[in-house]
Amino acid sequence: MYTVGDYLLDVVHALGTDKVFGVPGDYNLQFLDHITARNDMKWIGDANELNAAYLTDGYARKNGFGALVTTFGVGELSALNGLAGAMSEHVPVLEIVGSPRTNVQKDQQLVHHTSGDGDFLKFEEAHKALGFDVYHLTKENAIDQIDSMVRTLVATKKPAYVVLPLDLGDVSVNPALKDKIAELTQPVKQDVSTSLLAEIGKYLSQAAQPLVLVGHEVARFGLENEVQKLITDHDLPFIDNGLSKGTLSEDLSQFAGTYNGELSPDTTKRVVDQADVVLLLGAKITDSVSGSFTQSFTDNQIIAINANVTSVFGRKTRVDFRSLIEELAKFNFTTAARPSFKTVQPRTLPTASDHLLTQEFYDQAVEASLQPGQTLLAEQGTSYFGLTTQPLPKDAKFIGQPLWGSIGYTFPAALGSQIADPLSRNVLSIGEGSLQMTLQEFGLAFRENLHSLILLIENDGYTVERYIHGMDQSYNNVPAFDYDQVPRLFGASDDQAVVLNARTENELLVTLKKAQEMTDKLVLVRVHMAQKDAPEVLEKMVKM
Amino acid sequence: MYTVGDYLLDVVHALGTDKVFGVPGDYNLQFLDHITARNDMKWIGDANELNAAYLTDGYARKNGFGALVTTFGVGELSALNGLAGAMSEHVPVLEIVGSPRTNVQKDQQLVHHTSGDGDFLKFEEAHKALGFDVYHLTKENAIDQIDSMVRTLVATKKPAYVVLPLDLGDVSVNPALKDKIAELTQPVKQDVSTSLLAEIGKYLSQAAQPLVLVGHEVARFGLENEVQKLITDHDLPFIDNGLSKGTLSEDLSQFAGTYNGELSPDTTKRVVDQADVVLLLGAKITDSVSGSFTQSFTDNQIIAINANVTSVFGRKTRVDFRSLIEELAKFNFTTAARPSFKTVQPRTLPTASDHLLTQEFYDQAVEASLQPGQTLLAEQGTSYFGLTTQPLPKDAKFIGQPLWGSIGYTFPAALGSQIADPLSRNVLSIGEGSLQMTLQEFGLAFRENLHSLILLIENDGYTVERYIHGMDQSYNNVPAFDYDQVPRLFGASDDQAVVLNARTENELLVTLKKAQEMTDKLVLVRVHMAQKDAPEVLEKMVKM
Ligand SMILES: Cc1ncc(C[n+]2csc(CCOP(=O)(O)OP(=O)(O)O)c2C)c(N)n1
Ligand SMILES: Cc1ncc(C[n+]2csc(CCOP(=O)(O)OP(=O)(O)O)c2C)c(N)n1
Repeated sequence: MYTVGDYLLDVVHALGTDKVFGVPGDYNLQFLDHITARNDMKWIGDANELNAAYLTDGYARKNGFGALVTTFGVGELSALNGLAGAMSEHVPVLEIVGSPRTNVQKDQQLVHHTSGDGDFLKFEEAHKALGFDVYHLTKENAIDQIDSMVRTLVATKKPAYVVLPLDLGDVSVNPALKDKIAELTQPVKQDVSTSLLAEIGKYLSQAAQPLVLVGHEVARFGLENEVQKLITDHDLPFIDNGLSKGTLSEDLSQFAGTYNGELSPDTTKRVVDQADVVLLLGAKITDSVSGSFTQSFTDNQIIAINANVTSVFGRKTRVDFRSLIEELAKFNFTTAARPSFKTVQPRTLPTASDHLLTQEFYDQAVEASLQPGQTLLAEQGTSYFGLTTQPLPKDAKFIGQPLWGSIGYTFPAALGSQIADPLSRNVLSIGEGSLQMTLQEFGLAFRENLHSLILLIENDGYTVERYIHGMDQSYNNVPAFDYDQVPRLFGASDDQAVVLNARTENELLVTLKKAQEMTDKLVLVRVHMAQKDAPEVLEKMVKM
Repeated sequence: MYTVGDYLLDVVHALGTDKVFGVPGDYNLQFLDHITARNDMKWIGDANELNAAYLTDGYARKNGFGALVTTFGVGELSALNGLAGAMSEHVPVLEIVGSPRTNVQKDQQLVHHTSGDGDFLKFEEAHKALGFDVYHLTKENAIDQIDSMVRTLVATKKPAYVVLPLDLGDVSVNPALKDKIAELTQPVKQDVSTSLLAEIGKYLSQAAQPLVLVGHEVARFGLENEVQKLITDHDLPFIDNGLSKGTLSEDLSQFAGTYNGELSPDTTKRVVDQADVVLLLGAKITDSVSGSFTQSFTDNQIIAINANVTSVFGRKTRVDFRSLIEELAKFNFTTAARPSFKTVQPRTLPTASDHLLTQEFYDQAVEASLQPGQTLLAEQGTSYFGLTTQPLPKDAKFIGQPLWGSIGYTFPAALGSQIADPLSRNVLSIGEGSLQMTLQEFGLAFRENLHSLILLIENDGYTVERYIHGMDQSYNNVPAFDYDQVPRLFGASDDQAVVLNARTENELLVTLKKAQEMTDKLVLVRVHMAQKDAPEVLEKMVKM
């Protein structure tokens, strides 16, 4: 028998994942049976729903799409902050919520995981209020709703939320439905007016100093190749920002750095300040990626092609994002030959002493020891501020969450991203305050035998907050844990994990080298730093 | 200078707490300064917001009121499932969310902790959709909104949600406002018609077998004394249920047991089956506290006095809950003299052998070793099902969450309840799947030096779910942790905590005795049980 549940999973599979994350609950167990029964899919259960949502987001950033299953009320609300992060930073995550049987809902029974008021719609109403695409499946509309979800998700690459009543997953449907799934998941190509292309081409041709800002939506739509072609064909200098860092390989000769307004490195700032036309591709200018809105370009220098709107020097028009980028990459226009130049160089290892570690040394050492193709994750503490100023090595990726900025996110996200691509080692830099938010994820890390490298900054509290407000306030303290016990407590076998400690510059270099060589285990490096030491850019930012 | 922030905190204090829980964030740090500056208040920061919300709920159940501070977007959405639990089970928790500066919101800036869409209202809209009382403070309305919040909270004892922009806390207000706070927090007494009292009195007088169901709203409104007077003055037999267990001391001679429909113990079922008039006081009949709606009484036997509505044999009327209960307790009516009887007896210690532990033995041993005045918490796994059938010792309290049923809740809730009343030791029974959800709470437990007793059921996975569906399915597995490492990892000093293990019946009795004697530390007992062993009532329930 072919059922609604099977169809939903076939669709999930066709959207591009063979893993489903989440936490079981009695309203979704029957649906989980459909997952475990398949040979082409794996269920990865997590310790709690927020972590699972973060994990799915990290997985989707690397894999292109991720799916999450939670249970009604308690599960979905626990996951909500994670899904809201995916919304904010435009990550295609599908959440499937198992809800009570149709008749239980119709009779407004006072069952568990409700407010005991007979209202079974309030959770989806809350999701609607937050702006999610909500699909409420019923016996009558299930297939239509699922198809509509797929079409919207493929077109927008935004998170979606589907409610599946317990009895609905097993309702039989026509197996022939399967045949149209492949087509359904194909993006619909839209016509792009040649005059728009010509106009953009003309402005780029005429510009004395054109510049491209490659934004995060480019990777979400999988348009890296198209954008790279556009840039290399025309030898256009480009920047990225904290939301999009590493979208294109930062070793490309056209790369001019990761921009952050007045807080950018000088070389990068110089290139941006001189630009007369800036082409924004799927980029958003938010406080944490623009040095608090100190970008040097203004609206009448900007051509912005975004997922939701395109605007040419302030004049807005709606064009399909993917189609426009694809066409633009193919479009024939000339740009003035410019001497090829490489403004930025990846870090080199600093010279080390036996001095106690500083953030400055740490940032340089971490950046320099990153390997080509690895994925760097920087948590929204001192890590993010310190580790987003310098170029990554060839093909290295970056994951941060500077817009939503929910701390604790990067640890599960690192594991999700690691699962999506086991060969690209994930290197996470995170503070203790953030790690404590989602600490139980070590359970999943060891069960799934992941070999990420986790750099834990132990600096006695929420240092980033100390700089923002309350340098010596007790609310910025966090309890000190003995992280040496992590492998034993969380059930690692002896050869699965190792904990290293670094207190001096020399120790850090030795430790990083060792950690990078131990690719067959999870390595946790405890990096001990002074409470009030912070990267220069953070110190500058709080003074702005 | 006296400010909006000071006024809000004076109000919070007057509502009855000298502790505020939460997690800092850059939109609430200035407000936290107002807390740390006070001598009459303590800030208790937690590892993450969901845990903090659970903690506040547990604190409020014991203390009568609790306050939580979170940051915009990321913080409040993380806490949301916890606040929704407080809503579902009617616990007076106030959440104060620090939001961006007024001008940042007005200018719709794309700042962190938003979706980057200029929408600063969506989070409060989501809270409205869930049914929360939402108060959006502005310079113009701050005092009115706060006052309205207080009045509603005092009248309804429901959770409330206040949004405080970063710049508003420091706005100066008239210090004379302080003088009216005491009055503001007084419940407004409402007139209760004598005819209604007489009618209720008459039905109770005439009933051959009247019965009172003491519900959870009684404790939320602090009406335990009034209800106890009503019961003892008229020698009325009474029951409670899983939502309200322990509201009145279960050693009262009128106590007939904790009711759970067809799943109740025989003695209790007999009393309820024979009742002709049932007086529900602040009670809700939900699936998990009624043996899936198998209660033996019907609407036309019920007089229900609830927080939101009163109904006499189906005829509904709106009367102020508190006023009606207070008046009823004082109202003069006669009931037929009944022989005093005591239907239920607290457990006695079972005879132990060297057999491996069973749930049956465990439940009996735990119940029998509970001391008068202690607080038992049972997590929504096998613990809840096994530990709600028998009466508690004198003045012992109970905390569970059978309606909202969010696992992981009871661990932070136990710590919150312990903080509210350090002298009543909290004894928590919890499964490993649940503990993993909120494991980092050990950090808070040790930092606050709490001496709770935690009984951890290690039975290799989600046993309660195995019984519901998927007995051998892999999604019901959870990673095995070595909980012996808990004190070291989470920073306990040597004399602050101890971990004990019990595998056999004899070991459990010895361990429980020892654990109960060690009142000067946190004791974690690892109780090892078979994967598929479950309390009888759970086995019966899944067959219903
Ligand atoms: C879920 C959530 N809660 C609270 C915050 C507010 N916040 C931002 S940074 C931070 C502290 C991070 O400290 P830590 O991880 O120790 O990093 P450090 O700056 O010390 O390196 C906090 C609490 C947040 N961003 N997200
Ligand atoms: C937040 C949340 N997620 C998921 C669930 C679904 N759920 C209910 S009980 C349970 C398992 C509890 O297992 P455990 O704590 O190990 O207790 P046991 O039954 O084994 O004693 C789960 C996952 C829930 N109730 N709440």
